[in-house]
Amino acid sequence: MGSTIALADGEAAGGAEQPAERPPAWPHRHLLDTDVLTWPQIELVLDTADVMAEILARRRPRSEVLRGIGVTNLFYEASTRTRVSFEVAAKHLSADVVNVSVTGSSIEKGESLLDTIRTLESLGTRVLVMRHATSGAPYLAARELRGSVINAGDGRHAHPTQALLDLYTLRRHVPGGSLRGRKVVILGDVLHSRVARSNLWTLTAAGADVWLCGPSTLLRGFEVWAATGVAGARRFTVTSDVEAALRDADAVMALRLQQERMAAGLLPSVHEYQARFGLTTERLRLAREGCLVMHPGPMNEGVEIAPDVAAGSGSLVTQQVANGVAVRMAVLSLVTSVGVRGPA
Amino acid sequence: MGSTIALADGEAAGGAEQPAERPPAWPHRHLLDTDVLTWPQIELVLDTADVMAEILARRRPRSEVLRGIGVTNLFYEASTRTRVSFEVAAKHLSADVVNVSVTGSSIEKGESLLDTIRTLESLGTRVLVMRHATSGAPYLAARELRGSVINAGDGRHAHPTQALLDLYTLRRHVPGGSLRGRKVVILGDVLHSRVARSNLWTLTAAGADVWLCGPSTLLRGFEVWAATGVAGARRFTVTSDVEAALRDADAVMALRLQQERMAAGLLPSVHEYQARFGLTTERLRLAREGCLVMHPGPMNEGVEIAPDVAAGSGSLVTQQVANGVAVRMAVLSLVTSVGVRGPA
Amino acid sequence: MGSTIALADGEAAGGAEQPAERPPAWPHRHLLDTDVLTWPQIELVLDTADVMAEILARRRPRSEVLRGIGVTNLFYEASTRTRVSFEVAAKHLSADVVNVSVTGSSIEKGESLLDTIRTLESLGTRVLVMRHATSGAPYLAARELRGSVINAGDGRHAHPTQALLDLYTLRRHVPGGSLRGRKVVILGDVLHSRVARSNLWTLTAAGADVWLCGPSTLLRGFEVWAATGVAGARRFTVTSDVEAALRDADAVMALRLQQERMAAGLLPSVHEYQARFGLTTERLRLAREGCLVMHPGPMNEGVEIAPDVAAGSGSLVTQQVANGVAVRMAVLSLVTSVGVRGPA
Repeated sequence: MGSTIALADGEAAGGAEQPAERPPAWPHRHLLDTDVLTWPQIELVLDTADVMAEILARRRPRSEVLRGIGVTNLFYEASTRTRVSFEVAAKHLSADVVNVSVTGSSIEKGESLLDTIRTLESLGTRVLVMRHATSGAPYLAARELRGSVINAGDGRHAHPTQALLDLYTLRRHVPGGSLRGRKVVILGDVLHSRVARSNLWTLTAAGADVWLCGPSTLLRGFEVWAATGVAGARRFTVTSDVEAALRDADAVMALRLQQERMAAGLLPSVHEYQARFGLTTERLRLAREGCLVMHPGPMNEGVEIAPDVAAGSGSLVTQQVANGVAVRMAVLSLVTSVGVRGPA
Repeated sequence: MGSTIALADGEAAGGAEQPAERPPAWPHRHLLDTDVLTWPQIELVLDTADVMAEILARRRPRSEVLRGIGVTNLFYEASTRTRVSFEVAAKHLSADVVNVSVTGSSIEKGESLLDTIRTLESLGTRVLVMRHATSGAPYLAARELRGSVINAGDGRHAHPTQALLDLYTLRRHVPGGSLRGRKVVILGDVLHSRVARSNLWTLTAAGADVWLCGPSTLLRGFEVWAATGVAGARRFTVTSDVEAALRDADAVMALRLQQERMAAGLLPSVHEYQARFGLTTERLRLAREGCLVMHPGPMNEGVEIAPDVAAGSGSLVTQQVANGVAVRMAVLSLVTSVGVRGPA
Repeated sequence: MGSTIALADGEAAGGAEQPAERPPAWPHRHLLDTDVLTWPQIELVLDTADVMAEILARRRPRSEVLRGIGVTNLFYEASTRTRVSFEVAAKHLSADVVNVSVTGSSIEKGESLLDTIRTLESLGTRVLVMRHATSGAPYLAARELRGSVINAGDGRHAHPTQALLDLYTLRRHVPGGSLRGRKVVILGDVLHSRVARSNLWTLTAAGADVWLCGPSTLLRGFEVWAATGVAGARRFTVTSDVEAALRDADAVMALRLQQERMAAGLLPSVHEYQARFGLTTERLRLAREGCLVMHPGPMNEGVEIAPDVAAGSGSLVTQQVANGVAVRMAVLSLVTSVGVRGPA
C-alpha cells in the first residue's frame, strides 16, 4: 500500500509522523462537520494552524490572507468564546468582519434563515460563520451561499472547529505528538454534545482509542454507532462505567452539563451527576500519569469538573482557547482558498 | 425653458437621458427624506453609486473617502440588513464605524435622544445613521448634530436610502434605463410604510406613473395626497383594485405586511390579505412581460409575495440589497462633502 | 522639603504649575481606582491626555501606540458613552478592539467571571476594559489577567477614568489652570456614586476644597470618612445644607439620581429631591460668577439638574465627554507601557 493511498485512509495513516509526498489539496468550500475530512486534510488544517500560531506570536499578529474578504459572524445562540475567537481570527487575517446576533437584528421580525443568508451574501458576505440552535441549519445555508459556510455549532449536531482545536491541542501535548493508540475519554452528556460528535470523527481519524462515558440516558444511540464504527470502520467504546473508562487514559475531555437536562428528566440531580461522573482528582488517579484534561468551556466547575482538576498541571483548558484562534485562522484561510461557487 | 431650469424640476426633467450642463452641486448636509431632493440631485446620487459599484467590484473594495471620519449606527429598532448595509458601506469608505443599538446601551436608562446625540457627537461622531420608531426623530437629531444625519428609517415616515436604492435598481433593469412613463405599482400596507412614502418622491421625480394599491384601510389619507400631487404637481394613483393596478405594470414593489396590523383591526386576517392582495404568479400575468418585482425585505413569503414570484426571473430582491451598499456609499460620500455646521 | 518629595505628596504639591524635575514613571499595570495615584502620576495622565487631544484635533486622528494590541470592552452593565468612548479611544490608538456585552454572550450561561477573564486572555486580550455591577469585580480580574485591567465602573465603588476626565476638564477651564484652594461641590446621590468616590481622590490630590452635598440618607458613612480624611490627610466637607455647599463654589458636579432609589425608601420623591437639591439657576447664583457645572451623564434634566443650567454658559458637560476620549487614550497608553505580568 503506497503512502499516498495510506494518507487518504485515516485508520491506516494515523499520526503526524508520516509526511505526505505531495501536499494534499483542500477541496472543501465549507466546513460543516469533521466527518468529510480525510486524515491528510485534517493534517493540513493542523499544519496550517502551526503557521498561524507563528503569526500570532509576532508583535503585530497580522496577515493579509483575507484582505478585502467579508466575514460575517451570524450567531443565533449566545456565545462569548466562539464568536470572539472567530472575530479575532478573521481580523488577524485582515478580513472585513461584521457581527450579527439574534438580539437587535431583524431576525426577531421572523425573517427566514434563507432570506437572511441571501441578504448577507448580497451585502458582501463571503464567509459566513454561523451558530444555530437547529441541527443542520448550516447545511441549508451552505446550499444557498456562493461563498463559504463555517459551522460554529448547530444544535446537538456538530462543532467542527472545536474538534479541530481539540485535536491540535492534544497533539501538541501528547508525548510523541501522535494520538495513534492513545486512550482518549469523552466524559459527560454525550447525547446533547456537538463537541463530542465532531471529536469522534477527528479522534478516530487520528487513530485514538476513543471512549465515550456518561449516564446511560445521555449515551442513547451511541452503542449502535459504536458497533457500526465511525466511517464504517473506526470503532470506539461506549460505557457508563467511569472507572473502566478512565483507567489508563491518556486524555479526558469533560463535557459541559447543561443544567436544563434535569428538567427534561434525563438526570436525577446535579449532585448525583457530580458524585457519579464528575472529573475529580481521585478519579483521575485511575488514568495514566500526566493524563491530559480538556473542556470545551464554559465550565461548570464543581459539577462536571472539579476546580483543582480544571486548574491542575494536566489541564489544557487555556491552551484550547488560545489554539482555537490559530485553528480558526487556518480554517478561514483554507475554505476561502477554494473560491466561490459559480452562478447556477 | 432652459435645461438648467428644467433640471431643477423633476416633473419636466425626468429620465437619465438628459445630461446636466454643469455638474449639479450637492447641498444637503443631512439625508432625512427624499422630498427635498431635486431630480439632478437624485441623479447625482445614482451616478455616484455607479462609481461606488465599480469600487465594490474590485478585489479589494476600499476607498479612502471617509478616512478619519467617525460614522455611528444608532439603531433604536432591530435591523439586520440596513444596519449591516450601512456598516459595510462606511467601512468600504475607510470610515471609523461604531454600532450602538438600544439593547446593551444606556439608552435603556432613559437618556434623552438629544443627550445621546450630543454625547455621540462629543465622542467623535461626524455622521449619524439613525433608525427610530418615532417619525421625525432624525429631524430632531439633525437640528443638534454639527455633522450629518442619515435617516435609516423613522416610524412610518421615511426611509430615503431605501427609495434611492430602489430607484437605482429599477433604472439598471428597466429597458432604456429611464422610468419616464413607466407604470410602477407599490402594493400592500402603504399606510404604515416609510418605504412607500420615500419612494413616492423619487419615483414621481423620475417621471414614473406611480400606483399605490392595498386594502382601503391601509391607504387612508393617500387619496387626498394623490389629488394634490407630490411636490404640488406630480400626481399618482390610489386604488384598492389590484387588477387595475397590476394591468400593464412595468414594476411592482410589494411591501412587508406587519403582522401586528391584524391586532389593530386594520386587516381581517393574513389569509384574506394574501388571497386579495398577495403578489402571485397569476396576478403578475396582468402586468407587462418581464415585469420587475421588488421588495424592501424582510419578506413574508407566502403572505404579501408568493415564493415563486420572489424567486422568479423578474425579481430584483437580491439586487436591491447589493445595490444598497453602493447607494449608501454614495450618500455617505455626498453628505460628508458638505462639511459640518459652524459653531452657532 | 525638596521638590521631588513634594511631587510625591499630593497635598503639598497641588497644581500643575510645578514641573517635575525628572519625568515621573508610570508604575501601574492596571487602573482600578484613583486612590493609588500620586499627584505626579495624575499629572502624567493629564499631560498625556493633552498630547492625545492634539492627535484628536488632526484630520486623521490616529496613533500607532497600541498597534497589534488586543483591547476588549467587557460590559456587564448597559452603557453608551463609556463603552463607545473606550472603543473610539482604543481605535484611535490602532488597537484591535472587541466588544463583549452581557446580552448575546455565553455569560448568560452562567460562566464564572474568572473563566471569562481567562478565556478572553487566551483569545488575545491584552487590555480588559470592564464594567460590572459588583464593586470590586475588576480587582478580581486584575489578579488573573497578565495584561491590564481598566475599571470602567464597578458597582458603587469606582470609575477612575471618569474622575480623571473630570479633573482634566476642570483644569482646562478653571482660571489659572489649578484647583488648589478652589471649592468644588459634588451634589446629589453621593452614597451610590462611583463617580463621587473616584473624584474625591483626584480632587483632594489636586488640592481642591471638596464639598459633598445631598440628602443625609445619601451621604451615610461619608461624615466618618471626611473626619479621617482621604489618604489619611486630605479632608473634605460633608453637608446636607445645599446653600452652604454652593456658596462661593468654583465648580459644581451634579450626580445622576437613580430613580430606583425611591423604591428603596431612601428618597421621598423625585419632586421633593428636585425641590431641595436640584441644581437650578437660582441656586447657582450662590456660587461664584462663572461657576463651572459638570455632570457625568446621562442627565435627568429637570431632576438633579435644570435644563437651562445643563445648557448654560458654565456647563462643561459636552467637554467632559469629548475630553474623555483623550483621557482614555492616555490611560490605555500608560497602562500598556508597563508590559504584562510574567508567568507565575
